[in-house]
Amino acid sequence: MKQKKFILAENELPKQWYNIQAEMPNKPLPPINPQTKEPMTADDLSHIFARECSIQELDQTHAWIDIPEEVQEKYRFYRSTPLVRAYALEEALGTPAHIYFKNESVNPLGSHKINSALPQCYYCKQEGTTNVTTETGAGQWGAALSYAAKIYGLECAVYQVKITMQQKPYRSSVMRTFGATVVGSPSMSTRAGKDIITRDPLHPGSLGTAISEAVELAVTTPNCKYTLGSVLNHVALHQTIIGLEAEKQMQMAGEYPDVVIACFGGGSNFAGIAFPFMRHNLSGERHTEFIAAEPESCPKLTRGKFQYDFGDTAGYTPLLPMYTLGHQFKPANIHAGGLRYHGAGMIISQLIKDGYMHGVDIPQLESFDAGMLFARTEGIIPAPESCHAIAAAIREANSCKKTGEEKVILFNLSGHGLIDMPSYEQYLSGELINYRVSDEEIERNVSQLEQIIK
Amino acid sequence: MKQKKFILAENELPKQWYNIQAEMPNKPLPPINPQTKEPMTADDLSHIFARECSIQELDQTHAWIDIPEEVQEKYRFYRSTPLVRAYALEEALGTPAHIYFKNESVNPLGSHKINSALPQCYYCKQEGTTNVTTETGAGQWGAALSYAAKIYGLECAVYQVKITMQQKPYRSSVMRTFGATVVGSPSMSTRAGKDIITRDPLHPGSLGTAISEAVELAVTTPNCKYTLGSVLNHVALHQTIIGLEAEKQMQMAGEYPDVVIACFGGGSNFAGIAFPFMRHNLSGERHTEFIAAEPESCPKLTRGKFQYDFGDTAGYTPLLPMYTLGHQFKPANIHAGGLRYHGAGMIISQLIKDGYMHGVDIPQLESFDAGMLFARTEGIIPAPESCHAIAAAIREANSCKKTGEEKVILFNLSGHGLIDMPSYEQYLSGELINYRVSDEEIERNVSQLEQIIK
Repeated sequence: MKQKKFILAENELPKQWYNIQAEMPNKPLPPINPQTKEPMTADDLSHIFARECSIQELDQTHAWIDIPEEVQEKYRFYRSTPLVRAYALEEALGTPAHIYFKNESVNPLGSHKINSALPQCYYCKQEGTTNVTTETGAGQWGAALSYAAKIYGLECAVYQVKITMQQKPYRSSVMRTFGATVVGSPSMSTRAGKDIITRDPLHPGSLGTAISEAVELAVTTPNCKYTLGSVLNHVALHQTIIGLEAEKQMQMAGEYPDVVIACFGGGSNFAGIAFPFMRHNLSGERHTEFIAAEPESCPKLTRGKFQYDFGDTAGYTPLLPMYTLGHQFKPANIHAGGLRYHGAGMIISQLIKDGYMHGVDIPQLESFDAGMLFARTEGIIPAPESCHAIAAAIREANSCKKTGEEKVILFNLSGHGLIDMPSYEQYLSGELINYRVSDEEIERNVSQLEQIIK
Repeated sequence: MKQKKFILAENELPKQWYNIQAEMPNKPLPPINPQTKEPMTADDLSHIFARECSIQELDQTHAWIDIPEEVQEKYRFYRSTPLVRAYALEEALGTPAHIYFKNESVNPLGSHKINSALPQCYYCKQEGTTNVTTETGAGQWGAALSYAAKIYGLECAVYQVKITMQQKPYRSSVMRTFGATVVGSPSMSTRAGKDIITRDPLHPGSLGTAISEAVELAVTTPNCKYTLGSVLNHVALHQTIIGLEAEKQMQMAGEYPDVVIACFGGGSNFAGIAFPFMRHNLSGERHTEFIAAEPESCPKLTRGKFQYDFGDTAGYTPLLPMYTLGHQFKPANIHAGGLRYHGAGMIISQLIKDGYMHGVDIPQLESFDAGMLFARTEGIIPAPESCHAIAAAIREANSCKKTGEEKVILFNLSGHGLIDMPSYEQYLSGELINYRVSDEEIERNVSQLEQIIK
């Protein structure tokens, strides 16, 4: 009897997150205060973020960090998510590879984002915060935060990237259903937004513009903290619940992955699935390959530069050491809104530099080809972001078909695409196109960067 | 430690469906051939339906029917669905009642419908059928069938009720993503559709009109079978997998339901959750209350008449003994498209007549009030259909609050509402209204019925 789905018993759920910083041979460089050029302290960060998140952000000592009992209780309400052997996809590809996916699409709100929204809101509540604010790209993070904020009785305001508001209007409705205020970014409600609109009235927005607006709202509103759904170290930490579960579930399946794959925007779902497995590479015990699948139209991992840069368009955040396309880079209007971000997180950037992982860039059409095949075989319509991970997994599986290797491939299905149906409709009617960024455009944005940040 | 979620191990999944017909003290009356006025045989039915489904439809002998091993394998890929204790909802209501829900919204395609789509397509495939056709209201059934047909390599054509195509355009996209042909009903592609449009050019469609068109396509297309997502006995049979699992899961929780609730369109999800528990009422061992929650705008259980009637608007189907509002009844354009059907299934109608269950009718606004509270507490946006079950459960929980009773309430969450966000948006902006059917309208439709069917 083929077993396809692996679920953990409640008492096997992880009680700690894994903090890869503590075990990296070269630690990530510190975030820097753009005024003083000094490394940021937890005190500095806690002006914007919850204090506990600020401490986690800079913790390079403790490899294991306790998940608060209250957060564990909330995790138990929906976790573990299933680890699934994709037999039908394997058969359709005719590959000897074994393909597994971790199904985060069955989480509340349909993606992995809830895993960090819960602890972030929990810490805010504990620390006496009454309001939270954030940015959202595709809307997965904003939706998750809206629900987590509602659970903990916090008011929630979300700046949603304008183009994705138009592409997937249902997502704003989801956030409003959970009681959040939703504003399209760039908006006229902040100084940052007004500046951007004044310069470029038709700016479609990006995660960078929305972060600027949300940070501005947080620092100008009493008792309000900013929360981020990706990029930062503490977000990656919370998401390791995914990979820690997957490790136990792969044991149930009697296998260990040769390749671990996730799509890549700021790094949250990639870190989540990858870091717990990568710790065995750091210790030299395993030699798993780690692949981050980014869109061809926003190729910071494969074609960006390692450099200190702002996390947002307006330059409100600390300077972060990132593989980046420059914080003024304006990504094309692809449907994978969650991947339209100019930079990679600090940990990831260091891991790439040190050769522990690498990126691949996926054209938009290839990502939807992959998503369609996955839907028609496995019965789940994947989010356009997740389609990039599937496409990278299919590339691996096809190369196994050529070589005859029985590689074990594990990818993270970060979310479902039910809110993204207009993008599938466009794909079906042949309207979707690829967007390749020119070398000149990357060069122009990155060289401006060297001017701005000395 | 509060346990909220109960999941069955793979080896505990049911291997048989429960056929309540075999144990009913009064058997349901037979379907009748409208021409000959003779009871239909399995041979008659198999002109339209898969042969195995036709046999199951009339089986009043075998209480347990084996689930084919191939269907069991497909069930294992996503089942069991979680049984969830709704602690957060209980707390918000301040009720002493214990509220549980069976979460069918995490199934592939987001509802319980896949449980019958898989066996129906399996039997069609086994019997050499190459094409299947069906109707769909909200689109949950059509989506599930599209996927099941794709798995078994069958071509699939779906007549979708026109008004719901407009209300939830994403659902058609979902069906097309799985390769189905989708046509709005009433359409000009069938004689039945043309007749309806000629009489009433603005007819919004209903399950009744869509069934007529799908049946017509099936009988005029070589090697094509019609499949139905509700109403019929074999569909109810397949759906009992829900309640059979729930019974074991309630044992894990150490409780037994005092009240079992589901929303009601044609009866598929109601039968699924209720019949396995009801067998202990039939045997006299238990005295559970069974409540079917129907919309106020389509009140066949609470205000309809028990009478032979057609299952569709054009009068193509056999005559069925049903609680009905008349097959020409035109339900209001509520968002719960899956509940816009004029009649109840044959088994259900007999069970109501014999006092084993009863209906309640829920106004549209009350259903959305309930759905909003559920979303904000439990984190799942329910389908507008499922909102009716939640509303009925809340009524019970509130009456427990008054009496102090610690009743155990179990309801079926038949599907999620992510494709239905425009309805939530209308609710949030105060645009939704109630539709109460007048006594005159019901009287007019039912009396026409007596004219037509002698």
